[in-house]
Amino acid sequence: MLRKSNPTAVAPPYKNIYSHTVEVPAGSRLVFTSGQLGIAPDGSINPDFKVQAEQVMKNLAALLAHHGVGVEALVRINAYVLARAQIPLLAQARAAWLGDARPAMTTVVVSGLAAPDWLVEVEVVFSVEEARP
Amino acid sequence: MLRKSNPTAVAPPYKNIYSHTVEVPAGSRLVFTSGQLGIAPDGSINPDFKVQAEQVMKNLAALLAHHGVGVEALVRINAYVLARAQIPLLAQARAAWLGDARPAMTTVVVSGLAAPDWLVEVEVVFSVEEARP
Amino acid sequence: MLRKSNPTAVAPPYKNIYSHTVEVPAGSRLVFTSGQLGIAPDGSINPDFKVQAEQVMKNLAALLAHHGVGVEALVRINAYVLARAQIPLLAQARAAWLGDARPAMTTVVVSGLAAPDWLVEVEVVFSVEEARP
Repeated sequence: MLRKSNPTAVAPPYKNIYSHTVEVPAGSRLVFTSGQLGIAPDGSINPDFKVQAEQVMKNLAALLAHHGVGVEALVRINAYVLARAQIPLLAQARAAWLGDARPAMTTVVVSGLAAPDWLVEVEVVFSVEEARP
Repeated sequence: MLRKSNPTAVAPPYKNIYSHTVEVPAGSRLVFTSGQLGIAPDGSINPDFKVQAEQVMKNLAALLAHHGVGVEALVRINAYVLARAQIPLLAQARAAWLGDARPAMTTVVVSGLAAPDWLVEVEVVFSVEEARP
Repeated sequence: MLRKSNPTAVAPPYKNIYSHTVEVPAGSRLVFTSGQLGIAPDGSINPDFKVQAEQVMKNLAALLAHHGVGVEALVRINAYVLARAQIPLLAQARAAWLGDARPAMTTVVVSGLAAPDWLVEVEVVFSVEEARP
């Protein structure tokens, strides 16, 4: 199981939505994802930020499910948005997906993504525990 | 061997140049690189973006070779450029290096890198498999 | 122990402050941190960049200490600042913390962080070695 820590020597995580450290046990398999976009399974992309953020979470959820795990397996989430004003909407979509899970997290505002209609991109690392024989 | 997946619940990777997830088997050694720059072995840097992008790939290739592996060992590539218009040139240089390899990938446009003549920086994670006894 | 390499086929690391590659031995436990901020333990944040950068390093040091390791356990440092002119101050605070340690490193300038008074954010990956039986 992942060991998540918030040492008291460091101020609590901002808004208590993440953990300061996430330790992956030896023998786990780590999975790295590509930056996920707000693109629906049919290839369409909605111009609305909120819809894109929700689709990103659906895509990430599908990737974790494909590897047989859920949000508790998340190690770190790295999010890229184009405007700070959109971070609360991202946080809302992410919180709805995460529930009680508290992975490590970094969110930054960048100047652009690879296509002009992409407003948010999120990559994660997650862990699949080795079945112990 | 790395397990790369593109679940059908998620739209195919953009331009089919990456994999949505890359799973590292237990017992592998992970290697993290610093952000690689378009600096030639003699310390010079060409002001042309295309030349810098090609040099970045040469530098990454040299790092992988030093650890005894090739592009099939790449787990994730994180690329940072200063202008979206330059991403196609980056993609071209990266594709020439990658061949059939499809690691995970995230590319973002940032406002700056640590020195004013650096136009592109790329870091990777790759995997070296433990020799099984 | 982490294996750090600077192959001669690649120009030496910029200002010799990092390693090109850091290899994590099999059987280690990896720890991923959230992006650390210049927030003091009492929740206050100083508007001065230098003070924030020093606080970030204190926070990271506390996280490593919580897991029983020091700077030699650092695998990669990813730093995000809002202006290139501030990178030398970041480098100074980081160097004071790192001493002789040379992890992998990437630093980029972004357009914003999640709160307007945050001037620098730094996340790291570090390694805790499994006690060998």
